Amino acid sequence: MNTIAQVDIKELANEYGTPLYVYDEQKLTANYHRLKSALDKYYKKNSIHFTIKANNNISVLKAFRNAGSKVEATSPIEILLAESAGFSGDEIFYNGNYESREDLEFITSRKDIKINLDDYSSFERLLEISKTAPERISFRINPGIGRGGFEGITTAGSDAKFGIPYEMAHDAYQKAKESGVKRFGIHMMTGSNNLEPYYFAEAVDKLMMIAHDIFSGLDIIPEFVNIGGGFGVPYYDDEPELDVDLMAKLIAEIFSERCHKYGFGSPELILEPGRYLIANAGYLISQVTGVKDGYRKFVGIDAGMGTIARPSLYGAFHRVKAYDNSNPEEKVNICGQYCENSDILAKGILLPQLAEGNLVTILDAGAYCYVMASSYNSRPIPAEVMVWDGEHKLIRRRETMDDYMNLYNF
Amino acid sequence: MNTIAQVDIKELANEYGTPLYVYDEQKLTANYHRLKSALDKYYKKNSIHFTIKANNNISVLKAFRNAGSKVEATSPIEILLAESAGFSGDEIFYNGNYESREDLEFITSRKDIKINLDDYSSFERLLEISKTAPERISFRINPGIGRGGFEGITTAGSDAKFGIPYEMAHDAYQKAKESGVKRFGIHMMTGSNNLEPYYFAEAVDKLMMIAHDIFSGLDIIPEFVNIGGGFGVPYYDDEPELDVDLMAKLIAEIFSERCHKYGFGSPELILEPGRYLIANAGYLISQVTGVKDGYRKFVGIDAGMGTIARPSLYGAFHRVKAYDNSNPEEKVNICGQYCENSDILAKGILLPQLAEGNLVTILDAGAYCYVMASSYNSRPIPAEVMVWDGEHKLIRRRETMDDYMNLYNF
Repeated sequence: MNTIAQVDIKELANEYGTPLYVYDEQKLTANYHRLKSALDKYYKKNSIHFTIKANNNISVLKAFRNAGSKVEATSPIEILLAESAGFSGDEIFYNGNYESREDLEFITSRKDIKINLDDYSSFERLLEISKTAPERISFRINPGIGRGGFEGITTAGSDAKFGIPYEMAHDAYQKAKESGVKRFGIHMMTGSNNLEPYYFAEAVDKLMMIAHDIFSGLDIIPEFVNIGGGFGVPYYDDEPELDVDLMAKLIAEIFSERCHKYGFGSPELILEPGRYLIANAGYLISQVTGVKDGYRKFVGIDAGMGTIARPSLYGAFHRVKAYDNSNPEEKVNICGQYCENSDILAKGILLPQLAEGNLVTILDAGAYCYVMASSYNSRPIPAEVMVWDGEHKLIRRRETMDDYMNLYNF
Repeated sequence: MNTIAQVDIKELANEYGTPLYVYDEQKLTANYHRLKSALDKYYKKNSIHFTIKANNNISVLKAFRNAGSKVEATSPIEILLAESAGFSGDEIFYNGNYESREDLEFITSRKDIKINLDDYSSFERLLEISKTAPERISFRINPGIGRGGFEGITTAGSDAKFGIPYEMAHDAYQKAKESGVKRFGIHMMTGSNNLEPYYFAEAVDKLMMIAHDIFSGLDIIPEFVNIGGGFGVPYYDDEPELDVDLMAKLIAEIFSERCHKYGFGSPELILEPGRYLIANAGYLISQVTGVKDGYRKFVGIDAGMGTIARPSLYGAFHRVKAYDNSNPEEKVNICGQYCENSDILAKGILLPQLAEGNLVTILDAGAYCYVMASSYNSRPIPAEVMVWDGEHKLIRRRETMDDYMNLYNF
């Protein structure tokens, strides 16, 4: 693999150094349009909120804004970043959890943000802070277990930290209504990195059933229904892509049908994808620092567990491609320079024989990679570059010793 | 738990905000002296090199320097930090792995640093860079598997990325000698977080056997033997402390005996502890942001997986203590504010009933905690404070939005 968006990878490595995160603007824009046009085809009143926690670079946020996307934020600084990228309050959806008083003070200082709370106790704090009830509120629902057998839901269930238990949600909305809230939404996150269209339709069905249960006795018609994210990307060569057209169709069908059945009218359908929009548009370029013929063959590169945490944190797999290399393939382990054995990025993968100085590219590094980087072993967090049509531009510079020393100046 | 080194935890939280890392200077100094005096008692010619990757705060490094410690570094910036703390080259031990040309150029620009290489190929790069052979070198040895059955060694073995395979080490030293190197050392890391004194003695025995095998035919007498770190601390109430006196005695006995037997004279015995010296001197103070009575009882705090990665990364356990709280105990899960279900710090632990605004302290947070922090969810990396004898001092300030914005100025 020699180019990204017609830009030579070697040119990028030479100009910006390695390790280096690179994002393909056209690819992330195309990801957005693919999902958006599928949704538009089947249910017009929809909004896509890119989840900032997947990638918080301001230029990335601007690219999504240019494409027409809105954003989802989970912390005050994510809201500030969204504002820096030009998003207005009504384009920001805030998902809290265990929201602190300070966080709530910050959020309520912003106009028009859609505030989604993770618990009724958060609403009580919000009321105390803002004195009067907010105009609009939504809660995240945890559907629990044994309520539909949603296999693979890692963000819900009785052991999950998220959401109001389904059984308590009615009370939460009732109290919110009694406090003076006029407009309502509802939120449920249905899982993470799923590639199966029917899965999402089932999740929407479940959410709508829950919404009906909650709202029917309260005379509430939801203004929006946020079905969360979880739209997957293939990390392996032999995995299929998520069929977004089919998914949109299935979601829209069940959504429209249930809205009609439950008398919800036409609420806004909100999605908050992160991975689906940016994962495959991101690349991590790294240089081979040394090759060890030990008990196994280890190829050491200048990216490691501090640069990209997913392999050590989740055991996640990322494909690795060699630059301009026609050597015979061999089985290798890829590791970083961190002084810790967790620092292994890939085990037993086939790559053309590599030597010191060679470049490799780690694929699908756009989501949950840079944002989780640390300066462990005092190795600096890398730079980020945007590429398009043979052009490239630095969009966040590499951290330096000076940045670290700056934290001692107070 | 209300105080650290006679400083009120509430005072610290009020003055510096939460989450907050706090280090007890006297405790870390005592940890150093306990280990050092045990070693001195049984084998005088020893050096303790605190491993910077466990905690890289310059004030922490200075505290260890004042106590008499030397340091171990794994990257160029760790060497710069050591220099900032006042360490001279001969007090720095460098452990590389998959050392890049740039790293080697930096290291060789420093005088008197003990350079320990992870592979012979690194030595070849070093020779190319410095033209003449270094005066002194050591290699890290990987003892492989089936060579003594070292259960629990996670930093060696055929799947480990570290060290020169035992069988190839002879060749590496021979070539280094032929290149003109005059003085030699040897290094082997024997595991991580072990609490069993006999384990270390066994490891030393194994390393000495390997050293003898390698050096006997080469007419090399090692100047130092670095047995690495891995000296454990109890993370649970019912775990015993490592008996360092017994450990030092066992290590020294086998070390002296083998040195005599193999004709090594009295080489310097080097240890590079991190966790043992600083883990229990570190505390993470955090504030309860919300309590959720869901399917389980979740106590949300303002520290999470980005603040302290060990629970999500390794499934590690850290004790949590409540501040000034005589409520009846209940079983709770402790989680952070991160929008991810991995963000659970402790499951099913007993704590007095907590409410929003209450303070909790996470124990044993001195090692491998701050250094692995990330700004995931755009939550700032916390401040660090040193405490002693009722006094306290900010030693690294909290990151801010401005720090993040600064990376866009280029």
